[in-house]
Amino acid sequence: MKEQLSRLKPYQPGKQVDEVRREYGLDRIEKLASNENPFGSSPGAKQAIEKGLTELMIYPDGHAADLRGKVSRFLNVRPDCLIFGNGSDEILHMVSRAFIEPGTNSIMADPTFSQYKRNVIIEGGEAREVPLDSEGNHDLERMLSLIDDRTRVIWICNPNNPTGRSIDRETFISFMERVPKNIVVVSDEAYSEYVTSENYPNTIDFIDRFPNLIATHTFSKIYGLAGLRIGYGVAHSVLISELEHVRDPFNVSRLSQAAAAAALDDQNFVRECAERNAEGKKQYYDFCKETGIHYFPTDTNFILMEIGDSGEDVFQYMVRNGYIIRSGSALGCPEYVRITIGTKEQNAAIIKLLKDYVSCKQPS
Amino acid sequence: MKEQLSRLKPYQPGKQVDEVRREYGLDRIEKLASNENPFGSSPGAKQAIEKGLTELMIYPDGHAADLRGKVSRFLNVRPDCLIFGNGSDEILHMVSRAFIEPGTNSIMADPTFSQYKRNVIIEGGEAREVPLDSEGNHDLERMLSLIDDRTRVIWICNPNNPTGRSIDRETFISFMERVPKNIVVVSDEAYSEYVTSENYPNTIDFIDRFPNLIATHTFSKIYGLAGLRIGYGVAHSVLISELEHVRDPFNVSRLSQAAAAAALDDQNFVRECAERNAEGKKQYYDFCKETGIHYFPTDTNFILMEIGDSGEDVFQYMVRNGYIIRSGSALGCPEYVRITIGTKEQNAAIIKLLKDYVSCKQPS
Repeated sequence: MKEQLSRLKPYQPGKQVDEVRREYGLDRIEKLASNENPFGSSPGAKQAIEKGLTELMIYPDGHAADLRGKVSRFLNVRPDCLIFGNGSDEILHMVSRAFIEPGTNSIMADPTFSQYKRNVIIEGGEAREVPLDSEGNHDLERMLSLIDDRTRVIWICNPNNPTGRSIDRETFISFMERVPKNIVVVSDEAYSEYVTSENYPNTIDFIDRFPNLIATHTFSKIYGLAGLRIGYGVAHSVLISELEHVRDPFNVSRLSQAAAAAALDDQNFVRECAERNAEGKKQYYDFCKETGIHYFPTDTNFILMEIGDSGEDVFQYMVRNGYIIRSGSALGCPEYVRITIGTKEQNAAIIKLLKDYVSCKQPS
Repeated sequence: MKEQLSRLKPYQPGKQVDEVRREYGLDRIEKLASNENPFGSSPGAKQAIEKGLTELMIYPDGHAADLRGKVSRFLNVRPDCLIFGNGSDEILHMVSRAFIEPGTNSIMADPTFSQYKRNVIIEGGEAREVPLDSEGNHDLERMLSLIDDRTRVIWICNPNNPTGRSIDRETFISFMERVPKNIVVVSDEAYSEYVTSENYPNTIDFIDRFPNLIATHTFSKIYGLAGLRIGYGVAHSVLISELEHVRDPFNVSRLSQAAAAAALDDQNFVRECAERNAEGKKQYYDFCKETGIHYFPTDTNFILMEIGDSGEDVFQYMVRNGYIIRSGSALGCPEYVRITIGTKEQNAAIIKLLKDYVSCKQPS
């Protein structure tokens, strides 16, 4: 295999809920580790899938014309400014596949979503990682300073995973103005529908002004369709046509296209999930303030908290008590845990367990 | 974008059935162009999807443990000899992504399935194409003669698309024995369940003997799940683990995994489709013999025929009469058409139209 692949850790399959239940001998376990939507998905999505069951043997529309039309009208962008993927993961993959090659480099935050770096290394590029600042934000100035004539792509995770912090409109525009136009900037906005900060940029407004910008969106988070693998990119049509060169012809399943189109129609569901998430955040904020636990104010459906000294210990404690959360050790911040904000009841139950954990750890 | 991408034709979205119907002002149109299964898919697959509708918001199992177990038992191979993809298309993509890089080359037939070449070019490799022999078979001797120390992958399409010809067991073994062990050989067996020739190799028996061999299979053809995008590769576990380095973590949808597992259980459906396909082939063979039309005896669910001088003309004639078939012009054999073998009634209707076409073209 290509030499650079040996620098990647082999794929570690994540534990499935059933597996963990058996391993720990638990009756019941809940997973709040992958930022899935605790409120499920729109009933319309299920109906669209049922309607599609008679055509399983037909290849999907590679152009995703129906869904493309819907997203185009929803965002008010031209249809040829859109590209669809097998999750927004695949859009990220396509960006590296189209622009990164041996001898080039790419700039990203650290910690951030791990796939940016992985894809860059697979293509033989150099990954230049820039530590977040102490508040969990991208250090955009430092990122700009690392640009050279071999830089091809800059990855912005907005809001950032795992810190949940977002970049505001003015800061983002100022950054874009200073990035040379031959360098692609990816704004990964998987969690954008959860943002409550003011002045979050609607980057789609900038795709003409910055033809090197691509915003990526997913149906896996607030739309609750993670199981179906569908996301999309929005950019100037020239950038989209470049990415089309590396897209597999039938990359998004028929049922996923149909379900996503129906889910998009149900904006009431989206609003309701965003509101409930904001209430859930408050539960966690109150807990952190009460106990003095350090946390990052979040614009997403997860929260990164420093509980005790070791995220791994907290993870183990929570699993034994029936909840899978995420230790920060695999996310580049081993003292932390990342917890998906769940239903009100789930949040209360988890907070109760965390309170017990914290009080037991305190010197008596 | 990477320089080599400019050598690829931009993606041309295929015409959807509805689009063609509108364009030609037709009431009814049937598509026999993409080798989809005219008999649909197993009812079990639909039931499995319905059962999965409550978990759309949960990420798929990236390891595909349930499906892996089923395929492993069905094929009698170890679970770690399998890798799953978003269609077998994605397995082909992963092979290039893992092994091809600038300065390397890759050998394939011409004409054959177009994605091999496309993926090699995307990765910056050189595609060495070897014309089929006059009977539509791979010229394996010539392919072997093109191997050099920069050759990384050889693509065998067995049976070959678009000629439908297959390679027998002895020929395949003799070929594998002469390929250096550091070169990966892909045996794309998308149509293997339709093979009626004797001595078709069960390549899965050879994965220990030839650890550089990977067989790819799909649920898109005889299993009738093209819309769901799922396929798999079978190889020695070392080769599989190399490919795992370049697999996106959640590449196969939950519903696709569930449907494929159910479809695999329904081998009666598979057998019945294979039998009906063999009967359909006979309808076409009889027509070709009667009219003296040149065709390639096929081990697949499609047939390549030379009707008149121009596949494009036949295509246009058939569309006007309500059938989408495939002109050979995009397949590297412009005098031919490739037609998917359909139901008995579809075959009869198409043959009637072709007879009319042929008789009108004949000098009176």
